[in-house]
Amino acid sequence: MNKKTIGVALLGCGNVGSGTFRVLTENAGIIAKRAGADVRVKAILVRDLCKDRDAGIPKDLLTDDFSAILDNPEIDIVAELMGGLEPAVSYMKQALQAGKHVVSANKAALARSGEELTKNAGAQGLMLRYEAAVCGAIPVMNAISTALAANEITGIRGILNGTTNYILTRMDEDNAPYAAVLKDAQDKGFAEADPTGDVEGHDAANKLTLLIAAGFGRYIRPDDIEREGITGVTEDDLRKAAAENAKIKLVATAVREKDGIRARVRPEFLPADHPLSSVRNEFNAVLISCNMADDIFLQGRGAGPLPTGSAVAGDILEIAACIARGTEKNALPTWRLQ
Amino acid sequence: MNKKTIGVALLGCGNVGSGTFRVLTENAGIIAKRAGADVRVKAILVRDLCKDRDAGIPKDLLTDDFSAILDNPEIDIVAELMGGLEPAVSYMKQALQAGKHVVSANKAALARSGEELTKNAGAQGLMLRYEAAVCGAIPVMNAISTALAANEITGIRGILNGTTNYILTRMDEDNAPYAAVLKDAQDKGFAEADPTGDVEGHDAANKLTLLIAAGFGRYIRPDDIEREGITGVTEDDLRKAAAENAKIKLVATAVREKDGIRARVRPEFLPADHPLSSVRNEFNAVLISCNMADDIFLQGRGAGPLPTGSAVAGDILEIAACIARGTEKNALPTWRLQ
Repeated sequence: MNKKTIGVALLGCGNVGSGTFRVLTENAGIIAKRAGADVRVKAILVRDLCKDRDAGIPKDLLTDDFSAILDNPEIDIVAELMGGLEPAVSYMKQALQAGKHVVSANKAALARSGEELTKNAGAQGLMLRYEAAVCGAIPVMNAISTALAANEITGIRGILNGTTNYILTRMDEDNAPYAAVLKDAQDKGFAEADPTGDVEGHDAANKLTLLIAAGFGRYIRPDDIEREGITGVTEDDLRKAAAENAKIKLVATAVREKDGIRARVRPEFLPADHPLSSVRNEFNAVLISCNMADDIFLQGRGAGPLPTGSAVAGDILEIAACIARGTEKNALPTWRLQ
Repeated sequence: MNKKTIGVALLGCGNVGSGTFRVLTENAGIIAKRAGADVRVKAILVRDLCKDRDAGIPKDLLTDDFSAILDNPEIDIVAELMGGLEPAVSYMKQALQAGKHVVSANKAALARSGEELTKNAGAQGLMLRYEAAVCGAIPVMNAISTALAANEITGIRGILNGTTNYILTRMDEDNAPYAAVLKDAQDKGFAEADPTGDVEGHDAANKLTLLIAAGFGRYIRPDDIEREGITGVTEDDLRKAAAENAKIKLVATAVREKDGIRARVRPEFLPADHPLSSVRNEFNAVLISCNMADDIFLQGRGAGPLPTGSAVAGDILEIAACIARGTEKNALPTWRLQ
């Protein structure tokens, strides 16, 4: 079925939902040219129809009825941008069951249900993509799943969480204590009111699970990843690192060892010449070590409405291009099944 | 047509050809799993059947008869790894005409004939991919063509030539004059006996043409790119830069301006905090500025048999995966046609 208009439903209209809407509408001309079809947002699922929204969000697209999205034959792609485990996972399953391709930015949900969702998608001949779930705009899932796919990945090291990198950078460069920097980050919207998920390394562990599934074809649950957050990092630690011309960063690491994959998230001393040491503030970066390509380093914005929206829209565009050409089922799954 | 074995012909058995052969054979298990089919080299085109080859190259694969490759129905993909303009361009055209998908690492040929070859491929429903032609193992063409495709690209800046970056780095760090470093680079195999193509910026201009076609959808001939090489860079220039905590790098730049794309290759002062300034020796890097994703920085090995072979094999793998799934014609063309 070659189509001229590809319909999209966005689940959620928070930061990522509204950012994705903006990318899809402001860049609609570019996207249509590349996809070979118009890509139109047909519905945006929200919990509260009466809540104030960004001025750019058309009210008539809002709905609180998910079943209407499932039943709408004009909707080809469902983009899950709600976050959290439920109802996000159930909604993705139902969307696949209803024959919709699925894009998601939800690392927590995918780190727990990505393998099952990938199998469901494969069984239905549908695509499941989630570039935005790992490091926002940085095309790391794409690189691992396609351009570097002919390599055995030997190691992945990354700064996968912008909030903690911002805090550590400010502590280091402003000689400020953890608590003061955290409060400043919360005031600026870089850290949540309850920062546990970021500062204890849970968010980075979720992303590392997804990188491991894509790069090594193994599933390691986020809870099974050795994990230490940044709450124990003191100004004194940072001064000691600076004296050695090093930085302290929250580094997520997965390495192939003889008996399997070793995975951990923890604060590490990085010497000045390590590519990850120069990644400042809220930026993310990933170093992918390959048996043929050697080390590939990717850096960019790991969060924010537009960078994350860019990644969601990129996934939507690729699926739309396949639908437009009548070549669905083509994509290499991002989650490498054994 | 779903196939269980995908046949590949390599045109050329030099550095890139033998590197590609090694990637395809040593990583054959990984590639088969990802592609969903075995990928087998069925023939390697060489000029001289009697020349000594890498020990790993099976003699029975060598042929000097291109028409036998065209006529072989077991060959699905032709990888052009010969370099130079002719017969490379004619061979790619003939391969497409014979219904073979084409992969190439040949920046000079693609910078001149990429648009025509892309049209030929499109008309035949075939894929033309050339990740390896720009910055070897760095997945930059892939990032621009797919993950970042929903963006308007506003600028591209890169260190696209490893030889000149090696020379400038050694001049800077060893306080050595151009001529001595060039000779050392030639002795080590990092520079060719006639270094003109590298040191005068022609190689970087070829790659910039390919980045512009992918990122901006415009064709600017390499000869129309403002170009200055590194032969005029003196030790004194580097000392002055160092005094300002800056580096001198051969930078290829393409920026979107009101009246079109402005493109140039020239030595530039880069302050210490510019991401390109820390790219040392033979490494390549590209900074892609996007209207939604902001800046994405990619760094890695831009040359060498295995890194380049990794990129060629990645392209072959993606095409093989499409053939195996019976979903050819799916790929977004790397060269963005207007």
